[in-house]
Amino acid sequence: MPHITIPEGIPGIRGPLSLRPDVAKPLSEFTELLMRGENSLSRGERELIATIVSARNNCFFCEQAHGAVAQHYLQCDTKAMDDLKENFHSSDLSEKMKALLAIASQVQQSGKSVTPALVQDAYTAGATEREVHDTVLIAAAFCMFNRYVDGLDTWAPQDRDFYTGRAQQAAETGYSVSPVKK
Amino acid sequence: MPHITIPEGIPGIRGPLSLRPDVAKPLSEFTELLMRGENSLSRGERELIATIVSARNNCFFCEQAHGAVAQHYLQCDTKAMDDLKENFHSSDLSEKMKALLAIASQVQQSGKSVTPALVQDAYTAGATEREVHDTVLIAAAFCMFNRYVDGLDTWAPQDRDFYTGRAQQAAETGYSVSPVKK
Repeated sequence: MPHITIPEGIPGIRGPLSLRPDVAKPLSEFTELLMRGENSLSRGERELIATIVSARNNCFFCEQAHGAVAQHYLQCDTKAMDDLKENFHSSDLSEKMKALLAIASQVQQSGKSVTPALVQDAYTAGATEREVHDTVLIAAAFCMFNRYVDGLDTWAPQDRDFYTGRAQQAAETGYSVSPVKK
Repeated sequence: MPHITIPEGIPGIRGPLSLRPDVAKPLSEFTELLMRGENSLSRGERELIATIVSARNNCFFCEQAHGAVAQHYLQCDTKAMDDLKENFHSSDLSEKMKALLAIASQVQQSGKSVTPALVQDAYTAGATEREVHDTVLIAAAFCMFNRYVDGLDTWAPQDRDFYTGRAQQAAETGYSVSPVKK
């Protein structure tokens, strides 16, 4: 049961955000820009960063919701996404994406865990400064979203098909609309 | 040295935000609403939550910047703020604030660490659902800001007087203006 009164049937982050639409508005705009705005990192790559951070934070709702959207963009199945979450190092992702995911994984632990050597690996693999910046900010943002969702013990459907079934619509809708109406 | 090129002399979060003014805008609006908007938690109480989470995340810039603003609002000195950071349980804060800070401290670890018992303690001490919600969101937000600041290894003045000297101006200016112009 959630720690605060949330209208029934609204999953994950949408429930608490529905209680503070004033705060939901800039937060949704921020998410839309970060995750879907113009970027040399594809939307799928950004959703993958969000998914891996959420998985490491053990946030079921965010892991499934963003994992399903990442699958949709990257055109892979649930098994392939699970493999990526478990060990992206041995995947066929580009060396640049592996280096950026290594940075994101450290941000999940602590900002201080991001070493100059890890960042240098990303630059050597062709990452731009903007890509390093955005990777750190996406990973940091999901450390917020994950804590917001789980710190209030929000409701999350346990059936993974719930998330994959909605992924295409979520990808079309984006994040900037009112979270209640999604 | 920061992991990305940041204009010299801009401390903490303002440096990387200056590189993405599009993202800085909604993030600043979010912060302004959350930390300074209408609320039964005073601005000082909210800054105290931010300070204690930042201290536990070992983020020097955020701990000092928000700690100085909290001192300004709560009219206490640096020693008293250090004591609060070290052990708020034995302070003369209200039982409600102690219970909310206990929730915030768990959010810093993980959203899943917030137990029903901790939340019940806050309600028993008189906290509202909105106050529990906002405490979780403030604590979660600083888990983002702290990681953003340290994950890019931004510059932070080491002299604590730098922060206390600017606290009054920071309290007057707020968060919604362009971070570069602050």
